[in-house]
Amino acid sequence: MERSLQRTAITLGDAAGVGPELVLRALADHDVLASGQMLVYGNETLLRRVAAAAALPFPADAVVVPAHTPFAELPVGRSVVLDFPFPEAGMIAPGKVCAACGRQAYRWIEAAVADILAGQAQALVTGPINKKAMHEAGYDFPGHTELLGHLTQVDHPDMIFYSPRLTLGLVTIHASLVRVPQLLSVERILQTLERACAIYQRRHAQPPRIGVLGLNPHAGEQGIFGDEEARVILPAVQAARDRGYCVMGPLVPDTAFAHAALPFDVCIAMYHDQGLIPFKMLAFDDGVNVTAGLPFLRTSPDHGTAFDLAWKGIARPTSLIQAILLAAAR
Amino acid sequence: MERSLQRTAITLGDAAGVGPELVLRALADHDVLASGQMLVYGNETLLRRVAAAAALPFPADAVVVPAHTPFAELPVGRSVVLDFPFPEAGMIAPGKVCAACGRQAYRWIEAAVADILAGQAQALVTGPINKKAMHEAGYDFPGHTELLGHLTQVDHPDMIFYSPRLTLGLVTIHASLVRVPQLLSVERILQTLERACAIYQRRHAQPPRIGVLGLNPHAGEQGIFGDEEARVILPAVQAARDRGYCVMGPLVPDTAFAHAALPFDVCIAMYHDQGLIPFKMLAFDDGVNVTAGLPFLRTSPDHGTAFDLAWKGIARPTSLIQAILLAAAR
Repeated sequence: MERSLQRTAITLGDAAGVGPELVLRALADHDVLASGQMLVYGNETLLRRVAAAAALPFPADAVVVPAHTPFAELPVGRSVVLDFPFPEAGMIAPGKVCAACGRQAYRWIEAAVADILAGQAQALVTGPINKKAMHEAGYDFPGHTELLGHLTQVDHPDMIFYSPRLTLGLVTIHASLVRVPQLLSVERILQTLERACAIYQRRHAQPPRIGVLGLNPHAGEQGIFGDEEARVILPAVQAARDRGYCVMGPLVPDTAFAHAALPFDVCIAMYHDQGLIPFKMLAFDDGVNVTAGLPFLRTSPDHGTAFDLAWKGIARPTSLIQAILLAAAR
Repeated sequence: MERSLQRTAITLGDAAGVGPELVLRALADHDVLASGQMLVYGNETLLRRVAAAAALPFPADAVVVPAHTPFAELPVGRSVVLDFPFPEAGMIAPGKVCAACGRQAYRWIEAAVADILAGQAQALVTGPINKKAMHEAGYDFPGHTELLGHLTQVDHPDMIFYSPRLTLGLVTIHASLVRVPQLLSVERILQTLERACAIYQRRHAQPPRIGVLGLNPHAGEQGIFGDEEARVILPAVQAARDRGYCVMGPLVPDTAFAHAALPFDVCIAMYHDQGLIPFKMLAFDDGVNVTAGLPFLRTSPDHGTAFDLAWKGIARPTSLIQAILLAAAR
């Protein structure tokens, strides 16, 4: 009966965005409830205001307990909402950038990470945050990935994107394009590849077919448009093959996705837009953002705070639900 | 009765590829025949061998005449095949790289360009060439675009891609990724934008909505991941707006295409794969490659020689037909 120990931590993200209502909806989803105990880092006042505004029921299964309730005292077999102090909760307006929301989003993440590192939950699912609100609250991170790297003191977490159709690993993330070539190395590519494959295998029984993209147009055209393919990418492909992976590459980037049936299950892209332009075209609303390489798995929906939709009850929970199912899988 | 003066020059490309059979099929297409006189730079022996191998009829409408027949003596209102000397035509094998094919492909292009520059045809449609065969024949160009720039002494021809759904302009083409940022300028972006819009308007009555992509992830995230957006791209967008274009940008690249209905008709991409990854996903088999900025318009199908399909009669002429219709439009 290990079931009660399998907990997934979920943070609401920016209170003025769609995060809170998507969590309310996910907590009513059968697959989510069947995948283990959900532990929501939130605030009761806020969630009840959002539920009322969005005309959503408060999840029937969920119990609200004060933040920092000893874990031994948590109810078993039901979702738990941890009620964190959030003095501004009664005044938050949907769709507005506010420092209090940024500060609170950070605190929920910080608390969830501490509990996971203490062994009280196995994985983290984060609701979307607003970079401007975080900045106004004094936290400057390009995104969740870097914030979590900071909280867990990991230098090179990997940003991986999962959808049922394609798993994507990014060798570089938030770097200006001019810096991308110098950031590539055999080790970085191999690490991203291994982590992306591990994410794929959480939801699939078969080992994946892997495609590693070239960096340059036509994958360098035999060195005419760049030597990174021969110098870095091909050696990484060969090393991965030596470790038993089924890998193709370096693939010509512009034709790699030009097929109705993709020739790979996992794609390794050298830079942000090379991978995310096709990924977002393929994964309309079921994409999941994954941070790998932390001491625990972290996932989130592959969309932002969607301030224009916030608290209206019309944002779709598909991506958050996929994020929870991936985090809770074992 | 200007009709007989509107001629479109078509070269077969690599004789061992799918070019010849696609031209045979296009010459039987009603829309193609209705769009003006087609002038094929080819060889009768080769075309009859390909027609036999691919089980295609020789186009009923076409007349074969010796190369260099005076233009005043060409039949009016029918397609014309110019029969160029090609000593190896009887021995060419489909799907094999051969120097004779590379040499002949070059000669057809050279002759067509000379005739167009002399005013005998208005636009050029090129069949796919094989870079290796061209290289073996002693011609080293990254692609048609550079070859035609050389033949017409134009320094910066633009590579534009057209499909009924999206017109794409590339600000940089065959450059290694590390060189892309330094190649961008306000003038280059503006020039590509104006040329891409002119291509779009050949087939559409309305002026286009234009989207200009950023260079860096998140379009630079307010300068955190690069300054090219503020320094080069935004000024180009503003200059285009001053000239009366309907332009948005710099757009965040990874989300620009993540909509079922694209928010623009013309997209300006900063580098090869940024534009061509999504273009090839959107334009499965009707994409057209356009060279703009030459003294004449040049188009070609957006696929290669497809050696594995050559002379079998199964390659689809959709893309070549679109290429001809775009070239012949006025």
